[in-house]
Amino acid sequence: MVNVDEKRLSEAKTVIGGRRQARQTFGFDEISLAPGKITLDIELCDTSFILGKHKFEFPVIASAMDSVMSPASAIALSKLGGLGVLNMQGIYTRYENYENPLKEITEADNQALVPLMQKLYSEPVKEELIQKRIKEIKSAGAICAVSCTPNVANIYGPVAEKAGADIFVVQSTVVSVEHKSNDKSACFNLRDFIQKMSIPVIVGNCVTYEVALEHMKAGASAVLIGIGPGAACTSRGVLGIGVPMATSIADCAAARDDYFVKTGRYVHVIGDGGMSTGGDICKAIACGADAVMIGSPLAKAKEAPGNGFHWGMATPSPVLPRGTRIKVSSIGTLREILLGPATFDDGSQNLIGALKTSMSTLGAQNIKEMQQVEIVIAPSILTEGKMFQKAQKLGMGK
Amino acid sequence: MVNVDEKRLSEAKTVIGGRRQARQTFGFDEISLAPGKITLDIELCDTSFILGKHKFEFPVIASAMDSVMSPASAIALSKLGGLGVLNMQGIYTRYENYENPLKEITEADNQALVPLMQKLYSEPVKEELIQKRIKEIKSAGAICAVSCTPNVANIYGPVAEKAGADIFVVQSTVVSVEHKSNDKSACFNLRDFIQKMSIPVIVGNCVTYEVALEHMKAGASAVLIGIGPGAACTSRGVLGIGVPMATSIADCAAARDDYFVKTGRYVHVIGDGGMSTGGDICKAIACGADAVMIGSPLAKAKEAPGNGFHWGMATPSPVLPRGTRIKVSSIGTLREILLGPATFDDGSQNLIGALKTSMSTLGAQNIKEMQQVEIVIAPSILTEGKMFQKAQKLGMGK
Amino acid sequence: MVNVDEKRLSEAKTVIGGRRQARQTFGFDEISLAPGKITLDIELCDTSFILGKHKFEFPVIASAMDSVMSPASAIALSKLGGLGVLNMQGIYTRYENYENPLKEITEADNQALVPLMQKLYSEPVKEELIQKRIKEIKSAGAICAVSCTPNVANIYGPVAEKAGADIFVVQSTVVSVEHKSNDKSACFNLRDFIQKMSIPVIVGNCVTYEVALEHMKAGASAVLIGIGPGAACTSRGVLGIGVPMATSIADCAAARDDYFVKTGRYVHVIGDGGMSTGGDICKAIACGADAVMIGSPLAKAKEAPGNGFHWGMATPSPVLPRGTRIKVSSIGTLREILLGPATFDDGSQNLIGALKTSMSTLGAQNIKEMQQVEIVIAPSILTEGKMFQKAQKLGMGK
Amino acid sequence: MVNVDEKRLSEAKTVIGGRRQARQTFGFDEISLAPGKITLDIELCDTSFILGKHKFEFPVIASAMDSVMSPASAIALSKLGGLGVLNMQGIYTRYENYENPLKEITEADNQALVPLMQKLYSEPVKEELIQKRIKEIKSAGAICAVSCTPNVANIYGPVAEKAGADIFVVQSTVVSVEHKSNDKSACFNLRDFIQKMSIPVIVGNCVTYEVALEHMKAGASAVLIGIGPGAACTSRGVLGIGVPMATSIADCAAARDDYFVKTGRYVHVIGDGGMSTGGDICKAIACGADAVMIGSPLAKAKEAPGNGFHWGMATPSPVLPRGTRIKVSSIGTLREILLGPATFDDGSQNLIGALKTSMSTLGAQNIKEMQQVEIVIAPSILTEGKMFQKAQKLGMGK
Repeated sequence: MVNVDEKRLSEAKTVIGGRRQARQTFGFDEISLAPGKITLDIELCDTSFILGKHKFEFPVIASAMDSVMSPASAIALSKLGGLGVLNMQGIYTRYENYENPLKEITEADNQALVPLMQKLYSEPVKEELIQKRIKEIKSAGAICAVSCTPNVANIYGPVAEKAGADIFVVQSTVVSVEHKSNDKSACFNLRDFIQKMSIPVIVGNCVTYEVALEHMKAGASAVLIGIGPGAACTSRGVLGIGVPMATSIADCAAARDDYFVKTGRYVHVIGDGGMSTGGDICKAIACGADAVMIGSPLAKAKEAPGNGFHWGMATPSPVLPRGTRIKVSSIGTLREILLGPATFDDGSQNLIGALKTSMSTLGAQNIKEMQQVEIVIAPSILTEGKMFQKAQKLGMGK
Repeated sequence: MVNVDEKRLSEAKTVIGGRRQARQTFGFDEISLAPGKITLDIELCDTSFILGKHKFEFPVIASAMDSVMSPASAIALSKLGGLGVLNMQGIYTRYENYENPLKEITEADNQALVPLMQKLYSEPVKEELIQKRIKEIKSAGAICAVSCTPNVANIYGPVAEKAGADIFVVQSTVVSVEHKSNDKSACFNLRDFIQKMSIPVIVGNCVTYEVALEHMKAGASAVLIGIGPGAACTSRGVLGIGVPMATSIADCAAARDDYFVKTGRYVHVIGDGGMSTGGDICKAIACGADAVMIGSPLAKAKEAPGNGFHWGMATPSPVLPRGTRIKVSSIGTLREILLGPATFDDGSQNLIGALKTSMSTLGAQNIKEMQQVEIVIAPSILTEGKMFQKAQKLGMGK
Repeated sequence: MVNVDEKRLSEAKTVIGGRRQARQTFGFDEISLAPGKITLDIELCDTSFILGKHKFEFPVIASAMDSVMSPASAIALSKLGGLGVLNMQGIYTRYENYENPLKEITEADNQALVPLMQKLYSEPVKEELIQKRIKEIKSAGAICAVSCTPNVANIYGPVAEKAGADIFVVQSTVVSVEHKSNDKSACFNLRDFIQKMSIPVIVGNCVTYEVALEHMKAGASAVLIGIGPGAACTSRGVLGIGVPMATSIADCAAARDDYFVKTGRYVHVIGDGGMSTGGDICKAIACGADAVMIGSPLAKAKEAPGNGFHWGMATPSPVLPRGTRIKVSSIGTLREILLGPATFDDGSQNLIGALKTSMSTLGAQNIKEMQQVEIVIAPSILTEGKMFQKAQKLGMGK
Repeated sequence: MVNVDEKRLSEAKTVIGGRRQARQTFGFDEISLAPGKITLDIELCDTSFILGKHKFEFPVIASAMDSVMSPASAIALSKLGGLGVLNMQGIYTRYENYENPLKEITEADNQALVPLMQKLYSEPVKEELIQKRIKEIKSAGAICAVSCTPNVANIYGPVAEKAGADIFVVQSTVVSVEHKSNDKSACFNLRDFIQKMSIPVIVGNCVTYEVALEHMKAGASAVLIGIGPGAACTSRGVLGIGVPMATSIADCAAARDDYFVKTGRYVHVIGDGGMSTGGDICKAIACGADAVMIGSPLAKAKEAPGNGFHWGMATPSPVLPRGTRIKVSSIGTLREILLGPATFDDGSQNLIGALKTSMSTLGAQNIKEMQQVEIVIAPSILTEGKMFQKAQKLGMGK
């Protein structure tokens, strides 16, 4: 099975020079979805998503970013039918009163920002605050998902589980199959960790068939797909690393399908990052995602703790900050952004309504059918004409 | 025949990731037309277009959009030799006096626009106004074409026919071969509808060989090709859906030719949307279109009811508005835009003169010959140099 | 020979949809030149170009455009070692005193421009002024080339020859092999015309192997290659017509080589339009051109009659104007632009110095060797990073 | 070996027209790096680079450009663990007191710049100043590298060696295998020169397998790869010449590997120019570079002599200036730019930290392993959406 896949991939490679070959990859901007013979009433379109014993009305998970998910916004999102993830290494578990640090971040000017964030995030994480935040979310009747990086998962995992978390996310920019370190005690064994945990574990991020497959074999309930595509992420510029989303998702979805055929266990593939409109979410699912994790679209909610700003979790890195604080502006309530009604026409509101409309137009009754709709390669390149139009809309020029 | 076609299409597919394959598609900006061995005197170029018993001087149909076609502008266009379509679900059949709602739309500021349009278009359509508008057009001696969406076609079809309409258009974003619904009574059977109607029926929109072929088999006199390409359309951003026009038209033209070979009946293929210059119209026909339906180029006419503005018919959607109101400005009379003389040099005026000049340059005596001219792939990508020039023309920078 | 060629071309075609196939074509912005094993001292690089009995120091011909070539600037260019072409249907042969009309054009505002030019160019051409201009150029000791469109060539050809013109150019947007017309007397027979003329005849424009070959067979001394690429040309937008220059030149150069092998007669291929820098001229020759015809780079000369403006000869069309008046600004003398020294570093000055430097870097001793240097496909697409840099240089943004 | 390679390259060629074929090439903006199965602790990543008897902490060499390397900044860079090259034909060896000329350059306005630089660089180079600068660098305990063009290498080589230089760089835009000249005495024989020199000789620039191989055979210790990609270079516009970096480096790395297999001698391949971020440096190494030479990123250092400006060494050409002076601004100390900590998040600071982070993410323990990581083709083309975002960040429009 893998051999067949390897063969296929190698066939698609192009020589870029000397003996170096590379595969052509595709992002959301380079593909589009094509209608087929069947359309549906929108009422027939089922967007539900089941993870472990939890059923969600729609397959949208909010990123574990401080500008997106606070305890309060995680509760609000859960009540609407989605899932929010609280970062256990963010502001909320470092500060009892997190309003002030949030305020400082949103009010800092551009030059002062990175040093300020480096300072604010040097305050230690407190286990009692982790417990407190989880209990806040649970006591509101919401489903509670929390995240941390692999290096601290063995510490915070049991803490979160004991405090009542429903879903655990182990997430760093890249989670590999094997991590080499001189300090053997620091090595994180995903398989052992998952076996210890009694709640579903989501693991990420990765971008390849092979790594996704290994995470599935290690027992992950879902894998997060995406390295470097997000609006608040600058990995590609800083590190040269990044794989376009359409290709990453399709590759990892193939791993999911192969793993399912072999084992009968279905592990969800979650596209993470790089989606800014309803159209992008539709494309992610068409490429094979079972759900999506989004940050910047939800940072635009009135309930978002970033108060109109959005920043990445690598921004406060003391050595190599590589995120960006973006002014996203608040454009509506979480409900308006997810369920509408929309009053804007740019794809930023009523994301689930857009997904349902797209599904009805494409004849897909559920997410599995949406994963089969026709994709075409249709780059939305910037031509002279489009530039002219766009410039006029932006009010540039005379 | 279909098997051969399927085979050809599958050969052209590229792996975008995993087991997901996609076909490369092309838009007008990515192609250009190449002269051959023969040129013609412009007087020898015949642009006429025959639909049923009606002969038009040129193959340009105005979109059924409220900003483009009012009863008065439909009359004016018919007299010039073209065809305008009046939307039976627009402002003109909802309001006896439509000047005020039009004025409100063109005067609204950007933030108030969508809610205003949602309100204005919630006023019910009145059958007596449908009849009245058709009679206004007919009594002026013009050819009258009207349109509605499939869900109300069985109601408005007989009304329009009785009132004297010459051509009927059944149009929604996507008209499929099979529409699934829980409410069986709501299902629209195109074949039955066309059999009941005594006037030619145009159906759309679709983008694929297969669906176009099915509409032809159902009895359509013409099919409208194009999903998501128009200037006032944001389907691609909101829904992720859209197929570039050059590919869509060429695919559906192949369906037309195959259907003609099999049955001897010639069904017109009409490219709809995404054309802003004479050059785009020439390319649409070169790709295989028998005629084109255009909106924004005609919204620039002094006679256009949008008064310098243009908006899509999905903008007033109460749930998911996905059109845009664009300021297009009035640049000349309908006659100047279609038949010249031009005083601008950007391809926005004398569209038919441009088509004739292009035909004479390419050696095409009529539309069928124009469908055979050589096409080359020549993306008009925005390079650094072009960006620099364009920015200077726009007056950007210092 | 042609069969082989046809086979090669058809192999390179891509399906754009249905049964429509198109060939991938390339422009200057999509290619670059690659150095090889040899370099040369710049003194060894010979850029001379021989046409009939005339030898030119460099292979640059000025376009027959009113903003570029007046009698005075044609004289100046000839003395520098190049060749200028005077348009026999331009301002200079319509007006005894042409300073006023030139002044009106350069001082008109944008809106008034096209109607003004339509008016100015409706003044009839006068044969005595043709003779006068030719004699002015000849009496200054310059080589005199003049041009007209095919429909009047049989009239103006003998006039020009008699007045002493050295080279005759028959030029229109597209000169085909066969022109169909109801008015048989209006048909222009290129072969008959050339046989009648005792001076070399240059013919254009064309873009294909086949048409270039036919013009060669008809006796042309050189063919002009290029439809729609120039800075002052909007054919692609208005008519949808245009073939990128790198492909056009390479195709027609193949026709030249095949024709030479068969007949022993060498017909020059002249790339015409779409070149704005020294780098573009180098690429044109590398693609196979023996010489280039340029307009906008020379319109920037202090001697240029356009006085800092440049416009196309299709702009005054009474029916379908399709050129643009561009403000190019005067950046130096004709000598500085062609032979340097340069004081700008953007490739707009010392065009021949750039050509020689490029030849020395690429190891080409003469134009024929320059036609053999390695070309690579390397699109200069506008990336995000480049856009950022460019925007800063333009002073856009904060 | 070469035959196999030639065959592979010819297979990859595309017809651009007629009989002209060209190879598809790739730049840094068109590729990206993809993580694999393994990650590493950052402490395990070894970036060291050994040239002759000198070991450097990181594989970054500063360009021999006057705006980047003065004696003082060369000393500072060496102490940090890198290598700076002083241009023996720059300001520092023409003027005893170089502060004034530097000041004039940075304070000149745009129009006066090229003539000013032409004047300043017409001051002769003085051998005693060459000796003085080298001794300044050596006496500070730094490793000293100096450069000159091939035509004067036989004169300045012995001078530099005698003064104590550790590494010698022979560099011009293009160094070929064979240079043809009428003046035989002017011909530079690289093999003879290297044999005469007792210190390592770096040669450049070249871009092809064949020329790199010849330089290796001639005895070079390292070859510089890159023609025309740099920020301060306009070779592509002026001369039409340039090969994208990813392809050039991969081609020359193949030459290095083939040469090593045959001879057992390892010649370093140094990517030169066109890198503005840490991500670009990571990509250069992934394509096969052993080290990189960078200019503009280091011109941003507070220690850089350009004082916030950067210019190319071809700018002062008396005949054909083809560089650009760019305002780069000072963004931090040399240490901050190379070793961090970063306070910006755009990839311009902590370049070595970025390289190490990228290596740890990609599982590469050293430069040789980094040369094997997976590359994907993923153009960062400017789409409409990105343009919109970028324009907003730039503060363009309303």
